[in-house]
Amino acid sequence: MPFSPTELEHPIVQAPMGGGASTPALAAAVSEAGGLGFLAAGYLAPDALRRDIEAVRALTRRPFGVNLFAPPQPVPDRVAVERYARALAEDYEVGEPRHDDDGWEEKLALLAELRVSVVSVTFGCPERAVVERLQRAGAAVWITVTTPDEARIAEAAGADALLVQGVEAGGHRATFDDSAPNDLGLLAALQLVASASALPLVATGGIATGRGVAAVLAAGAAAAQLGTAFMLAPEAATADAHRQAVADDGETALTRAFTGRTARGIVNRFQREHSAEAPLGYPDVHHVTAPLRRAAREHGDGDGFHLWAGQAHALAEPVPAGELVRRLAADARAALRQAAQLT
Amino acid sequence: MPFSPTELEHPIVQAPMGGGASTPALAAAVSEAGGLGFLAAGYLAPDALRRDIEAVRALTRRPFGVNLFAPPQPVPDRVAVERYARALAEDYEVGEPRHDDDGWEEKLALLAELRVSVVSVTFGCPERAVVERLQRAGAAVWITVTTPDEARIAEAAGADALLVQGVEAGGHRATFDDSAPNDLGLLAALQLVASASALPLVATGGIATGRGVAAVLAAGAAAAQLGTAFMLAPEAATADAHRQAVADDGETALTRAFTGRTARGIVNRFQREHSAEAPLGYPDVHHVTAPLRRAAREHGDGDGFHLWAGQAHALAEPVPAGELVRRLAADARAALRQAAQLT
Repeated sequence: MPFSPTELEHPIVQAPMGGGASTPALAAAVSEAGGLGFLAAGYLAPDALRRDIEAVRALTRRPFGVNLFAPPQPVPDRVAVERYARALAEDYEVGEPRHDDDGWEEKLALLAELRVSVVSVTFGCPERAVVERLQRAGAAVWITVTTPDEARIAEAAGADALLVQGVEAGGHRATFDDSAPNDLGLLAALQLVASASALPLVATGGIATGRGVAAVLAAGAAAAQLGTAFMLAPEAATADAHRQAVADDGETALTRAFTGRTARGIVNRFQREHSAEAPLGYPDVHHVTAPLRRAAREHGDGDGFHLWAGQAHALAEPVPAGELVRRLAADARAALRQAAQLT
Repeated sequence: MPFSPTELEHPIVQAPMGGGASTPALAAAVSEAGGLGFLAAGYLAPDALRRDIEAVRALTRRPFGVNLFAPPQPVPDRVAVERYARALAEDYEVGEPRHDDDGWEEKLALLAELRVSVVSVTFGCPERAVVERLQRAGAAVWITVTTPDEARIAEAAGADALLVQGVEAGGHRATFDDSAPNDLGLLAALQLVASASALPLVATGGIATGRGVAAVLAAGAAAAQLGTAFMLAPEAATADAHRQAVADDGETALTRAFTGRTARGIVNRFQREHSAEAPLGYPDVHHVTAPLRRAAREHGDGDGFHLWAGQAHALAEPVPAGELVRRLAADARAALRQAAQLT
């Protein structure tokens, strides 16, 4: 039987945070505490992903998940991407636009070989044959959706569960077609998706507290997935300038400035200056801005790289991940008991 | 003691729907069923508001609320409003831009005279003296907020409770300063506001089901406020074309095209054609478009007037309001019981 979110000791899933805060230590700590840890396969070479998976397994025997980026959409306007790259090149060191699939086939083969418990997919819906291949290798396949239409597509492709992402979420929107992003809040998305699919749901976007966890369980989710809430944990690899911004109460906004795909970050100088002109074009724009983001991060310049964070980031606390899992679960339990007295 | 949302038999508040679906019969039916009905004072002459209040009182002896629009912000660019009016005048019958306060003083005096149980305020925070005047007349004053900063301002002004509105909500955003609207989803807003204020919270935005009600209670709200969910009730005065659009699954979006203030409607032709050019300027733009919206509504043309609706509108059901209140409460109870088993 594939792993189901209803089997968790605590209904807490750690969100994969590609190219950022995720580490094997974080995933292992969450799983060890009775939640479900996640590795982000995005932006990793297959060998590095293999090492990360082995590192988690050295720390815990419990199930954990790995998140894959689905192959990207075509870029509608390459000229616009080139223009954006040239404009940035006047002020920054930039990379070449490149339209790659992040090693999709190699990573699928690796996850099948290593028999990972849960494989989640973001940025689109894989074909049924791909889903079945992972399932034959023992994986539960969770597909990230943002609308009831996407939920129907994912269910038809054979998904075992749906990750329902609200617009509150930090980092990339999971919308299948980023040229037409929607703005469904998590609670609306959960109610709409629950009416379109009977699959188990895992809710993500702006959940930062036990009350938030309780809310999505009450809305019908089997578990809550939290990313930003874990970014201040000692096990996370969050850059110092990013930690500082998460702990402050700055506003977040959606932007394509960093990667060419809609994502939510804490508004900083780069995001403010380039969001209006940034074209649709993932991962091409990601490769263009990679050098300037790396440089800013290395210099501790929080105004120069992507400060991915969900809307409730100011509530994140610098707590070890396992302790956070236990605390969120206990607070959620208390919140549900309290709410029951109002009805 | 002012009326508190924690006193409700069922934690269900009907949202006031100004210029649209609200009727005395709807408010009375919700209150009679053990929820809290609301009248919308917006766009009504004081005499009409008096008649509506008396009409509710003829139908129920239970508490109900009246919602007031706070006096509007100054219009930053009158020329832009004039330009928008001239452009629309090429295709439609338009009205004169007018910057009025919707009879704020007269309505305050009326509500104090008639000793309404709950007065909610939207579009800004009244001064402390105004809040106290209403409280001396026996009213609980609820102020609508969208951020923790607005919550602190409302608490400092003496509010008895906070209506927390998420970006999912249909109709106007309640943001104090519409020149800088935020996009906080309801669940993120609730968690953030709860960390900034200990006042009782009433949650609104995209709540359409008992599970949605349960979710906001679990998130810490004392009650859920639903608007769109009541729009198909026989007691509502929703126009036929609007009913049809609410029942369909069309996408919603934020727009200033109809009133000059950010509001969420089901995307139709007028909204699609005019959102990009529409200026900030409420209620001036409201008065400009009033004749063309009235004409479209009278002709049953759902492409020509504001189809206010929250993001979960497709889940609304054509059920009598009292039955809906009881059903939502029972479903919320069941959802909380079910969620408790996951923790």
